[in-house]
Amino acid sequence: MTPAHQNAFRGIWPAMLTPLTESLDIDHDAFAAHALKLLDAGCGGVTAFGTTGEGPSFSVAERMAAVEALVARGVPASRLMVSTSCAAPSETVALTRHAVELGVPGCLVLPPFFFKGVSDQGIIDAYRWVIDRVADPRLRLYLYHIPQVAGVGLSHHVIATLLKQYPDTIAGIKDSACDQAHSVGLANAFMPPLTVYVGFEPDLQTLGRLGSTGAISGLANFVPRLVHRLVTQPDAPTAARDQQRVKELLAIFEGFSLMPALKGVMAERDGQASWLRVRPPLVALTGDEQAELRRRLLALGLDPAHD
Amino acid sequence: MTPAHQNAFRGIWPAMLTPLTESLDIDHDAFAAHALKLLDAGCGGVTAFGTTGEGPSFSVAERMAAVEALVARGVPASRLMVSTSCAAPSETVALTRHAVELGVPGCLVLPPFFFKGVSDQGIIDAYRWVIDRVADPRLRLYLYHIPQVAGVGLSHHVIATLLKQYPDTIAGIKDSACDQAHSVGLANAFMPPLTVYVGFEPDLQTLGRLGSTGAISGLANFVPRLVHRLVTQPDAPTAARDQQRVKELLAIFEGFSLMPALKGVMAERDGQASWLRVRPPLVALTGDEQAELRRRLLALGLDPAHD
Repeated sequence: MTPAHQNAFRGIWPAMLTPLTESLDIDHDAFAAHALKLLDAGCGGVTAFGTTGEGPSFSVAERMAAVEALVARGVPASRLMVSTSCAAPSETVALTRHAVELGVPGCLVLPPFFFKGVSDQGIIDAYRWVIDRVADPRLRLYLYHIPQVAGVGLSHHVIATLLKQYPDTIAGIKDSACDQAHSVGLANAFMPPLTVYVGFEPDLQTLGRLGSTGAISGLANFVPRLVHRLVTQPDAPTAARDQQRVKELLAIFEGFSLMPALKGVMAERDGQASWLRVRPPLVALTGDEQAELRRRLLALGLDPAHD
Repeated sequence: MTPAHQNAFRGIWPAMLTPLTESLDIDHDAFAAHALKLLDAGCGGVTAFGTTGEGPSFSVAERMAAVEALVARGVPASRLMVSTSCAAPSETVALTRHAVELGVPGCLVLPPFFFKGVSDQGIIDAYRWVIDRVADPRLRLYLYHIPQVAGVGLSHHVIATLLKQYPDTIAGIKDSACDQAHSVGLANAFMPPLTVYVGFEPDLQTLGRLGSTGAISGLANFVPRLVHRLVTQPDAPTAARDQQRVKELLAIFEGFSLMPALKGVMAERDGQASWLRVRPPLVALTGDEQAELRRRLLALGLDPAHD
């Protein structure tokens, strides 16, 4: 077989925000419209149910139904990445198998995130559980590191062990620790063969220079081309200006809870109320906060619809 | 309606360990046998799928099937407490509704535990989501605080707000933070009307003196009577000796991962291999560790089968 990393994704696969209906269920129509718009904007694909997409706030059944609804509404399964991360390895198996059988080319998988302080061996066992039980040669798994949220991270030892044992399955590493030194350390250790995809946009340029070829990014929900340029052309004449723009964009979110505020930007962009809702335990922006967000966007003079 | 706390449980409802088959699925027969043995030993009831029971490591479907299997094997639903805690509020709703409809008199519910640093409002919203959607007057909900594992805890403000809004539903607080000052603070603030049940056995006596009438305890898997005496008769002549025994028992686990080692004690007690297994990300004791655990148990000269 071909080592998985040789088919690892390239370009930007935005970590899609998840629009919600009034009852806080997933708004399938708005979700698919968002995905299709991002693909039209040149994204390599789109990612559903990562941290930005509040993935673990939805049940297995809700996540399966939403992925099916995306495909039914015209999002090619081949351009979908699905985060299938759950506290229970058996639920991660169910979601991963479901995605693979639909033709999804990559699954993004956190370590189980309920127990803390678990050993490397326990984390390796959990990934082995998923890979061995899905038992499908089509599975391409991206290791997902976001310890400040999950409470459990991935050591170099875990990554090296899994890569050695499952070279046909382990396709890459998504590093959302927001710690440049950590991302560079991963790149030095594993890239190549694996691509390290950073989630923290200020580090895209640095990782691009080291050879990273893509990203799963939250900001890419509304500035996909900007994110794409930074990582794929880190030394282009536009790069310094793009880097500055990323800094300004992130400053918009200071003092706000990130996911509700990212959704608030979406609502400003297209006026849809489905972006103003989050599922508990997140809390939507208040009207005053949304007004402040709007003020900051205007002050920036940046039209997020055009990067 | 009668305020929920007036029917809150009394006595010991052990936080049952979950025995596993060779394929690391729940061993329904061994699980029911354990529950029935604890009820025979005088426990008020038994608790399934708390942290000690590795609850969040099992899918919604697995947890539902196991609760049904306990009832089918003769464990009265009226003597079952079920932790229905999930990262997704919609899954907590499904598990809670299932338990209530089976006749389970109490559900133990963590705040959603994926996102960290969430606001009190977000945690309140999550509990409201569960209570309002289960929408069953039979629901009795125990608030579950174990921040060192869940990564998300319950403030006094959260508890007071929920108690005020749902006096017919909020039945008590399980405090497993293992911090006596915190438990005493909860007792001073909320007991009465709510009972504070501590999970950390060295604090049972203190909480018993303050009026606590029961516990959900891990050690109670094998020393239920000892645990019962300490909290219900904290000033009995046996109390000082019992307190010392708890200290000695806990010392057995030093240097081991707690849940695998608690299971190791069960295996020493009844010889069943189903206790030697844990689900990832936990890791079972090695043979050497199990031998060391046996040595410590023997050195203690304590027969856990007889408290």
